[in-house]
Amino acid sequence: LERQDIKAFRDEYLLLHPYDRAIFYEKAGPELRRTMYYFLSPKEMAEIFETSEIEEEEYEEFLQEMEATYAAEMISFMFVDNAVDVLKELDKSQSVSYLTLMDKDAAAQIKELLHYEEYTAGSIMTTEYVTVPQNSTVRSAMNILRIQAPSAETIYYVFVVDDDNVLTGVVSLRDLITSEEDVLIESIMNERVVSVLVSDDQEDVARTTQDYNLLAVPVVDFQQHILGIVTVDDVLDVLEEEASDDYSKLAGVSNMDTFDKNSFSAAKKRVPWLIILLILGMITANLIDMFTDTISQVALLAAFIPLIAGTAGNSGTQALAVAVRGIATRDIEEESKLKLLIREAGTGLITGLICGVFVIGLIFFWKHELIIGMLVGAAIFVSIFAATISGSFIPLFMHKMKIDPAVASGPFITTLNDLISILIYLGLATTFINLL
Amino acid sequence: LERQDIKAFRDEYLLLHPYDRAIFYEKAGPELRRTMYYFLSPKEMAEIFETSEIEEEEYEEFLQEMEATYAAEMISFMFVDNAVDVLKELDKSQSVSYLTLMDKDAAAQIKELLHYEEYTAGSIMTTEYVTVPQNSTVRSAMNILRIQAPSAETIYYVFVVDDDNVLTGVVSLRDLITSEEDVLIESIMNERVVSVLVSDDQEDVARTTQDYNLLAVPVVDFQQHILGIVTVDDVLDVLEEEASDDYSKLAGVSNMDTFDKNSFSAAKKRVPWLIILLILGMITANLIDMFTDTISQVALLAAFIPLIAGTAGNSGTQALAVAVRGIATRDIEEESKLKLLIREAGTGLITGLICGVFVIGLIFFWKHELIIGMLVGAAIFVSIFAATISGSFIPLFMHKMKIDPAVASGPFITTLNDLISILIYLGLATTFINLL
Repeated sequence: LERQDIKAFRDEYLLLHPYDRAIFYEKAGPELRRTMYYFLSPKEMAEIFETSEIEEEEYEEFLQEMEATYAAEMISFMFVDNAVDVLKELDKSQSVSYLTLMDKDAAAQIKELLHYEEYTAGSIMTTEYVTVPQNSTVRSAMNILRIQAPSAETIYYVFVVDDDNVLTGVVSLRDLITSEEDVLIESIMNERVVSVLVSDDQEDVARTTQDYNLLAVPVVDFQQHILGIVTVDDVLDVLEEEASDDYSKLAGVSNMDTFDKNSFSAAKKRVPWLIILLILGMITANLIDMFTDTISQVALLAAFIPLIAGTAGNSGTQALAVAVRGIATRDIEEESKLKLLIREAGTGLITGLICGVFVIGLIFFWKHELIIGMLVGAAIFVSIFAATISGSFIPLFMHKMKIDPAVASGPFITTLNDLISILIYLGLATTFINLL
Repeated sequence: LERQDIKAFRDEYLLLHPYDRAIFYEKAGPELRRTMYYFLSPKEMAEIFETSEIEEEEYEEFLQEMEATYAAEMISFMFVDNAVDVLKELDKSQSVSYLTLMDKDAAAQIKELLHYEEYTAGSIMTTEYVTVPQNSTVRSAMNILRIQAPSAETIYYVFVVDDDNVLTGVVSLRDLITSEEDVLIESIMNERVVSVLVSDDQEDVARTTQDYNLLAVPVVDFQQHILGIVTVDDVLDVLEEEASDDYSKLAGVSNMDTFDKNSFSAAKKRVPWLIILLILGMITANLIDMFTDTISQVALLAAFIPLIAGTAGNSGTQALAVAVRGIATRDIEEESKLKLLIREAGTGLITGLICGVFVIGLIFFWKHELIIGMLVGAAIFVSIFAATISGSFIPLFMHKMKIDPAVASGPFITTLNDLISILIYLGLATTFINLL
């Protein structure tokens, strides 16, 4: 089917949703894809690249399959923000050569966006939005909209600007079509328009869009000049990316955004963490080593080391997760941080007490060891308390220092808690060795 | 300001964005809120409830502050899907009493949605969408749109149905305003409309919307009758909820959706996990206890137990996170599961080898113990290998069994890996005790 009939292929293929076309395109081998480049126009190809979830390394591969002029033309047909995303994945020299091959206007628009810093509003915004002067009528606004519709990423929000391109309001297409044609935009626009600064973090942009239930949010500079917009589909991707990011950091995998094709690249991402943790673990081992006398006298003591360290690690991770997630979803900014710490201290006290008493009972009924049970119980109580406080204090402190709190992540807190809990446990055991 | 002047308050307050109004409302104490109920109409109040992120337990509190008729009227003014969300949080008897107090039509619409199962497309959809017959013209479609605009949750997608209410296509408002007025809807509609089944999981609905970059997705039954739509703002909330959910499960906190106000409710969520893990930890302790002879002979062995168990736990969590995230973002469905397992086995082998050799060197240079170093290295090699396989196999297996793989979660895998790794380590040590 593929080889022979251009028309049949186009008829069938172009009826598919762009996303399904993209899936097909990605799965087709390089040969089939080369045929597709002959069958499809750069504009049609651009639509595929818009919706596909091509992985970062693949862009280069795909673009190299195309003729350079075809590739450049295709990129110029993409929405500017997506074109920028593609070019950012390439070498500097490659992206420059594509830029010189393409239409001057398109290249200028792309260049303008290329220099914004990663992870800011500027880096995810597009410049293809619709603005109208505030003194125009609904009728003329609708005309502007009709003309700009083919090239705008969204036409459902129309941004209102004054003569200096300062953002003064926003009108939704819903408002436009339900208003009389002669009404002035000024009189129906919403003046309290929610906007973000071009330097804002992309995560804040996403939260704002989500909180205010917007389909797009305008991006402005310090003087309120409109520079671009961020649409909700980009917001979805940002939230997804940030969630994956937090998740992988909690698990101690450096970067899960892209799914690994082979064992080596997967191992490369995981080994550094494990090595760091091994070194940290050696510190714990060294600490235990200091108590070998105690352990060789009562070997049973060693049996509870993983239990205590594990429990401290678990409660620390719980507290950490609550704090990291709270910061990410901005629940925490609202309540004071001190209040959170006090609350967490209380939580640590309560959970520590319950678990401590529980473990005394458990060891007594299982092993009939009251003294060791009490030692373990006391160690668990203190270490849950300490772990809960450190688990919430450290991410809050890092957030304050402008470091992503997710970096503090499970494994590091766990090592810290291992040290604290084992020191308490074996310290107590050595002190009360005569009773054992 | 609040007390005296109704007009001044309304002028100022109603200019705010509904989200900011909601924030103000939530922060106001019960007394201030009671004044607000007098100052604002049920319709205005409904808008606040739409956008606010009121927590589940608070709905009941807020509603009880209002007069029952006022509350019922307010709920009837909300979009149906949100009204349903509110009523679901209440006792059965309460929600029924509000339903009887409200307008019959509104009550009927709400009741229709109330019986859909939680976490399905049906439970998050709204019935306030716009449909047009396929044989109408663009002009008549625009008229229908203008009339329905005030009550529809989105007017940017218009769904096209035949005489039996079967979904046959979709037209965007963008297409409508750029088309000639006399054109038939049939000729401009997109026939390959992406839809979801009413029984589909809400997470699948969210992924579909995200993949296809939609602002709303229609919900249909098995015969393709349109039943409702899910809008992108609800999709954002679902993705957020699912991400938080996976994250909290990895951390072993049962439910972080709602931020706890006090230590007791936080402790209540965390203690059950810790207790379960303590019991699992006792199994590990019991296992170590079986090797007390070995340990009392060479107490240094005990020093490396947390290191080995910790490393196994960490590599297992890494593999688990990759698998859980891959399932959640649907990356895994595409490649075969067997391929993933083979790849993970390879990753385990490579990481195990590197970390094992590294640890031998580390112990040799630190403690000058070659034999113990080799024991620890061997144990680490085998346990990373086993942990990586179990960390990816278990979530894949659970997914197959239709259990949410995130439930398998860090702590459980960690306990399993503790057992395996300690058994290997102390087993080896006992076998080679003569060499030590």
